[in-house]
Amino acid sequence: MLYDNLSVNESGHLTIAGFDACELAEMYGTPLYVLDEDHVREKCRTYVNAMRASFPEGSMPLYAGKALCFKGIYPIVQSESMGADVVSAGEIATALAASFPASLLYFHGSNKTDAEIAYGVEQGVGHFVVDNLDELATLSREAVARGITQKVLLRITVGLDPHTLAAINTGKVDSQFGMPIETGQALSFVRTALATEGIEVEGFHSHIGSQIFEASSFCDQVDRLLAFACDVRDELGFIAQTFNLGGGFAVPYVESDPKVDIAANIAAIAQHLDEGCAAANYPKPRILMEPGRSIVADACTTLYSAGRIKTIEGYRSYVMVDGGMTDNPRYALYKSAYTVLNASRADAPADFECTIAGRCCESGDRIAENTCIAKPEHGDVIAVLTTGAYNFAMSMNYNRVMRPALIMLHNGEARVAIRRQTVDDLLALEA
Amino acid sequence: MLYDNLSVNESGHLTIAGFDACELAEMYGTPLYVLDEDHVREKCRTYVNAMRASFPEGSMPLYAGKALCFKGIYPIVQSESMGADVVSAGEIATALAASFPASLLYFHGSNKTDAEIAYGVEQGVGHFVVDNLDELATLSREAVARGITQKVLLRITVGLDPHTLAAINTGKVDSQFGMPIETGQALSFVRTALATEGIEVEGFHSHIGSQIFEASSFCDQVDRLLAFACDVRDELGFIAQTFNLGGGFAVPYVESDPKVDIAANIAAIAQHLDEGCAAANYPKPRILMEPGRSIVADACTTLYSAGRIKTIEGYRSYVMVDGGMTDNPRYALYKSAYTVLNASRADAPADFECTIAGRCCESGDRIAENTCIAKPEHGDVIAVLTTGAYNFAMSMNYNRVMRPALIMLHNGEARVAIRRQTVDDLLALEA
Repeated sequence: MLYDNLSVNESGHLTIAGFDACELAEMYGTPLYVLDEDHVREKCRTYVNAMRASFPEGSMPLYAGKALCFKGIYPIVQSESMGADVVSAGEIATALAASFPASLLYFHGSNKTDAEIAYGVEQGVGHFVVDNLDELATLSREAVARGITQKVLLRITVGLDPHTLAAINTGKVDSQFGMPIETGQALSFVRTALATEGIEVEGFHSHIGSQIFEASSFCDQVDRLLAFACDVRDELGFIAQTFNLGGGFAVPYVESDPKVDIAANIAAIAQHLDEGCAAANYPKPRILMEPGRSIVADACTTLYSAGRIKTIEGYRSYVMVDGGMTDNPRYALYKSAYTVLNASRADAPADFECTIAGRCCESGDRIAENTCIAKPEHGDVIAVLTTGAYNFAMSMNYNRVMRPALIMLHNGEARVAIRRQTVDDLLALEA
Repeated sequence: MLYDNLSVNESGHLTIAGFDACELAEMYGTPLYVLDEDHVREKCRTYVNAMRASFPEGSMPLYAGKALCFKGIYPIVQSESMGADVVSAGEIATALAASFPASLLYFHGSNKTDAEIAYGVEQGVGHFVVDNLDELATLSREAVARGITQKVLLRITVGLDPHTLAAINTGKVDSQFGMPIETGQALSFVRTALATEGIEVEGFHSHIGSQIFEASSFCDQVDRLLAFACDVRDELGFIAQTFNLGGGFAVPYVESDPKVDIAANIAAIAQHLDEGCAAANYPKPRILMEPGRSIVADACTTLYSAGRIKTIEGYRSYVMVDGGMTDNPRYALYKSAYTVLNASRADAPADFECTIAGRCCESGDRIAENTCIAKPEHGDVIAVLTTGAYNFAMSMNYNRVMRPALIMLHNGEARVAIRRQTVDDLLALEA
């Protein structure tokens, strides 16, 4: 099995954290997101412990809620001693609704609206990650009006391409995010920010993308950030206390993806940072990282019911499930690879080649093409692994299909953390 | 202007059906879907009148709700004498909530669940468009159990590639939809259906895709359907009363797209059908078409507020808006082209080349790349045209961004048809 919380029981059913996947499907209905809370906690601890062990005091991971934002996730990351990266008023409100401390929030976004900036300041968001000069001016006005000094990190584009998907690569010079070092705009950004009323610059943020498999991309990023920080010191006399490296390590989606040793990679980045700071005679900054996918992706499995199974003779077979792009648009968006299992026959050989299609009236509604699973019958439970990140978060009501429920498994108990949407939920907004 | 309901007023603002776009944005907030009901009605009438004039009695267009499904659309298409194509229990429930007659519903989908089939029969859905044998068996059980005879059309794949996007091309042999003629499965499907208890086969449905610019693709489709119908007559002695051609004509999204004369194209298809039926000595079937995009796409404009505007020196300029892929994922999904205007300066030259980026923390959040608009300032209203189809329908809460409101303009009055979503709407589902 791809992850060690998955197994097969004596009925030949897939188990998730010891729960029979078919029983969960029966009890809660399908499609169903099944999130293994203990697995989430384990990932949180891996980051927290490795960062505490290797980086200067105050270093910590921030949970990037954009991967999976709902009320129930915040008490978990809080109790695991993480901060949180939020990207909208909606994410802030969700975290606060779960009593997450505003002081531990880092507010991101290249286009925070004026209303959101006001809301963030009002709620006491600890840090703004300021993207650009226009935002800086708005934030300054809000801070001054309230008589406070707002701590900020400045978002810098380091000009790296870590060879991830274009859609999730944010480190290139030509980006809507941050201010680039290459053009001189980053330095000028820092100069302005340091002179802006109501603003306390604590350091820099940069994000080179998501789903990064090796430490070397982060080491390159550290080199560029450090070189930039040295330039800033030389030009402006400012020393950054914090480097926020963004991102998070990759998660394997299929067997052929490499496994990432998060702790070892963090140690390697830390050593690289130590050497760089020593060579540049730069005081070691505290380090923040922003794992989102890395925390939740492999903790979640989506369970579907197999519906119609169709073989187009001479072409291929389709197994149609009762969800698809509505609860997981990543294949439609990026042709993302997933591992699919027949949870009802998890002990049978995966020898039936088929395309897993969703239920929408759209040819692009696919979960996986030409994959092999144990030959299903109508009603079998089909499990798609690694659906914790950017699945519920990007889910939609296309074809007026309702959002699945999300259940959480913890200490041998299951509970509904997000209930299944109903058509009445949609109609409630309509005149 | 791309459409004749758009103009510019003396303030230099874009007007939509006579309403000042900037005033609408001010009054209802942004992002905002603005749907011109009169424009929708005009499109409905074009189809209804052309189909009545050219095709046999009983022919009619069915509104394909997948393009834009909400309660408020159904009274409009009903009063314009259209039926409706529905693809899920959610769409059926929405139509029924608006008192749309169940008898005028055509229930589509390659993977209707057993529960949905039961629900559809129970609610008296007029026609099922049956996709496959497994569905046929389930439907038969439900009909027999209720002592009724369910009218059906059988979905046939004609094996045509009308050169639209792969994601929306459904006419190819290798498709999850329908039963292909080429492999002999379609004929066998009809044979089984004719012998199935509780099922009355009325005719055939085929769908070759969406966004088709010329009649010739539909004429090819008619040829194939008619040849198939003749084979069925010869083999099984069955005469189809109905051909459902699916689809709908293309809508121009940008100035360079050809304009489609719907009535002329329908007349051309009708003539082709007449000739084909005469040559084959086949009784002329009534014709159904399923325009969705074609009815609503160009009736809707999305209004955004320009937020941060950023020039990466030597690269390009970004105009960031307060929505994006969350309310219109079509650029992210298909790189779809859109026409963008600065509604606040609709009389100024469109000479500022920029990329319109959304507000999500994702590089792929774009509405248009390297387009030209009148140079905006923060707070200007940015209008994106042709957003009626597959925008609200595919909207999502990624980054915990809320769904926009949708207002309808009719007879000089504006009303909120879908209210803006709030974070409390989301939190209401979460424990």
